[in-house]
Amino acid sequence: MLGRLVADATRLGRMTVRAGVVVTGTEVLTGAVSDRNGPWVAERLLALGVDIAHITVCGDRPDDLTAQLRFLADQGLDLIITTGGLGPTADDLTVATVAAFAGRELVVDPELEEHIAAIVDGWNRRAGRSPAPGPLSAGVRKQALVPAGATSIPPTGTAPGVAIPAVDGAPSGPLPAILILPGPPRELQSMWETALSVAPIAAAIAGRAVLRHETIRAYGLSEADLAETLRTAERSLPQFDALEVTTCLRLGELEMVTRFPQTADAVYSDLVDLIEAAHGPQIFSVDGSTIDDQLAEALAGQLIGTAESCTGGLVAARLTDRAGSSAYVAGGVVSYANEVKSGLLDVPGAMIDAHGAVSEPVAQAMAEGALRRLGVDVAISTTGIAGPGGGSDQKPVGTVCFGFARTGRPTTTMTRRFPGDRASVRALATTAALHLVVGGLRRD
Amino acid sequence: MLGRLVADATRLGRMTVRAGVVVTGTEVLTGAVSDRNGPWVAERLLALGVDIAHITVCGDRPDDLTAQLRFLADQGLDLIITTGGLGPTADDLTVATVAAFAGRELVVDPELEEHIAAIVDGWNRRAGRSPAPGPLSAGVRKQALVPAGATSIPPTGTAPGVAIPAVDGAPSGPLPAILILPGPPRELQSMWETALSVAPIAAAIAGRAVLRHETIRAYGLSEADLAETLRTAERSLPQFDALEVTTCLRLGELEMVTRFPQTADAVYSDLVDLIEAAHGPQIFSVDGSTIDDQLAEALAGQLIGTAESCTGGLVAARLTDRAGSSAYVAGGVVSYANEVKSGLLDVPGAMIDAHGAVSEPVAQAMAEGALRRLGVDVAISTTGIAGPGGGSDQKPVGTVCFGFARTGRPTTTMTRRFPGDRASVRALATTAALHLVVGGLRRD
Repeated sequence: MLGRLVADATRLGRMTVRAGVVVTGTEVLTGAVSDRNGPWVAERLLALGVDIAHITVCGDRPDDLTAQLRFLADQGLDLIITTGGLGPTADDLTVATVAAFAGRELVVDPELEEHIAAIVDGWNRRAGRSPAPGPLSAGVRKQALVPAGATSIPPTGTAPGVAIPAVDGAPSGPLPAILILPGPPRELQSMWETALSVAPIAAAIAGRAVLRHETIRAYGLSEADLAETLRTAERSLPQFDALEVTTCLRLGELEMVTRFPQTADAVYSDLVDLIEAAHGPQIFSVDGSTIDDQLAEALAGQLIGTAESCTGGLVAARLTDRAGSSAYVAGGVVSYANEVKSGLLDVPGAMIDAHGAVSEPVAQAMAEGALRRLGVDVAISTTGIAGPGGGSDQKPVGTVCFGFARTGRPTTTMTRRFPGDRASVRALATTAALHLVVGGLRRD
Repeated sequence: MLGRLVADATRLGRMTVRAGVVVTGTEVLTGAVSDRNGPWVAERLLALGVDIAHITVCGDRPDDLTAQLRFLADQGLDLIITTGGLGPTADDLTVATVAAFAGRELVVDPELEEHIAAIVDGWNRRAGRSPAPGPLSAGVRKQALVPAGATSIPPTGTAPGVAIPAVDGAPSGPLPAILILPGPPRELQSMWETALSVAPIAAAIAGRAVLRHETIRAYGLSEADLAETLRTAERSLPQFDALEVTTCLRLGELEMVTRFPQTADAVYSDLVDLIEAAHGPQIFSVDGSTIDDQLAEALAGQLIGTAESCTGGLVAARLTDRAGSSAYVAGGVVSYANEVKSGLLDVPGAMIDAHGAVSEPVAQAMAEGALRRLGVDVAISTTGIAGPGGGSDQKPVGTVCFGFARTGRPTTTMTRRFPGDRASVRALATTAALHLVVGGLRRD
């Protein structure tokens, strides 16, 4: 990708523990649902100083899963983590397949069996059900099967995790440690800390490097321009190679994550100085805070409200996404129809007729109307053309006008043009609205 | 996963063409961004009747990419598709790595070089830049390098695609056809049709099966209950094995996708009958339509408005997500603070004091207030406790009250309790609101 610059961690020889992740599930492989476990596990491992070499996705076919396990084991990894395929039904095959791959018998863990039976009983009691005991207790027994010599990790749903120790001289070469975790993200995440602490896994990641990772966020900066600055840094900073830099665009913001050992603290600090010198106005965060965090802080007790047209509620939804936001978000008006702009936000019909609903005067009137009607200190408005229809030569699809109003101060407005389809325009306009608020609050 | 039932397509021997996908990009591997290309490509291939065996994700390391290509080639696939790593900078290594893997020299395609140079020139002219010619023209030349004997696919950004024909007797065994596509989803998607039509790829997928795929959607049905019905179907429908069934939960809805050859039309129709007989009240769609589609249709020209508290704008955002929704969405009020519930929706303060903001009387008053204030025919309200704080014994986190109001008819209310964290409660409540509207509109 244009301007992405990633130093090769393996080449640098800092990360000595490498892991692979196998995501199982036909619904993931076929694109029906997008995988949330692979990225989550990868982020956690990286934060621990464990390098991710490969992620593989396979369906519920034992042969394909075995092939992927063989592939990962052949890459000389220290740890393989599998997610999914631990349910009670016959097509949930991960434990049996991994056990066969690792050359271990499956044995029932009686304590685990009792534990899972108690959980299922509780569910049924609460649901007022008394299901036929046959298939269910078969399901419970299936989930209590653990490869011989492995450590089980207590379930938070009904599916326990399994940790299999690494083996130096397995029949076909050494095998890495294998950690088997369930597919439902909530279950996997709540078992994570325990999973890392059990002996086979703790041993596998014992040699990891301890790394800092820091995030810089920019708005209105292109990847290409940042890449140019990074190339300059590469030439001018002697220890630059100790930094592993990844940049990516997220909802209109450019995010740069850097991982480095403690010994490279000074060069990272030099890099931050260099980037701030080159792109100061665009850099809005060097401490990991998001624009959402900054908005909450910049309000400093003031109440905010929204007046949205083209974003249709996305700005309000984003503001209220944060736990505790009821302390500073009063609410908002989604004024999709012109009648609602006039009726609930006091935008004069004549103004809409004269300038069009997508115009800075209307954006200003919407924000000021929200200020009064919602009884807030700060208001942000959006009105634009999200597409696909409704564009014109003067106001093509992607044109969005914003208004930012505060009690007792002049209202500011701006017009931007965003690229992409309807969803893209709406998402980029939402991010822009948050930046406009933070910029406005900080101006004085 | 509990109750998922997936017939093995390979075992059935219907899908004779198998493909693998390699997603490249350190930002994907490290979890910084979630991959959109793998699922998209998988869905498109499956719709064409091409089976997906493996998806692998690797960073920008040539050795890891080579290892994954080797792995996929060894699985006897007919086609490998790679995404990403085609940019102009030095760390974009896909074409060079794949060429080396396939044993082909890189040669400049002069026509392609001219084409890309023209695109970059246009960009620079529009941006008013005249960059130093050195690094840029090196970048253009890099992107115009194509493995010898491969077919290039014209870029929609600056990165062309590349199609390498399958080889029966490569030095180390046969190699599948390889299709190299860029990483930006918009570029990849706009090049897709052309990519499938070029000779090397058309030849690779020529033997594919032509399949129908149909979707059934249910609300309020558990995966376990559907799985039980599918087990019954497996026993009672003679040709059941010809169907490949995948089920998954999405935002509170259960989705069942079935793929099958034309010859299995009758058994699929029997399966639908059987599922409707068992779960009729929960099945809301057998024709692929979403609840969003059905809401738009059920409104039949009436205007809808929203009054949201805990969902904070998500219901309005979901309604306005559809292109053309301005024809039937007037707008909404996000009444996060009680003052806004009273001020903009006429909810009496005494009612809030008496029953609490999270109560059916308040939900009813919000919906009726929205009806009047927004001048709409239909209104939906939400008020609840999204968490993590604010819960009590009587009203634990996850409790959400809804109101559904129509002009000239009695308002209906309901209370539900949703599981999970704040984001989960808000998302599930949003889906529930849409179902409440469609159910209410259809009741008479």
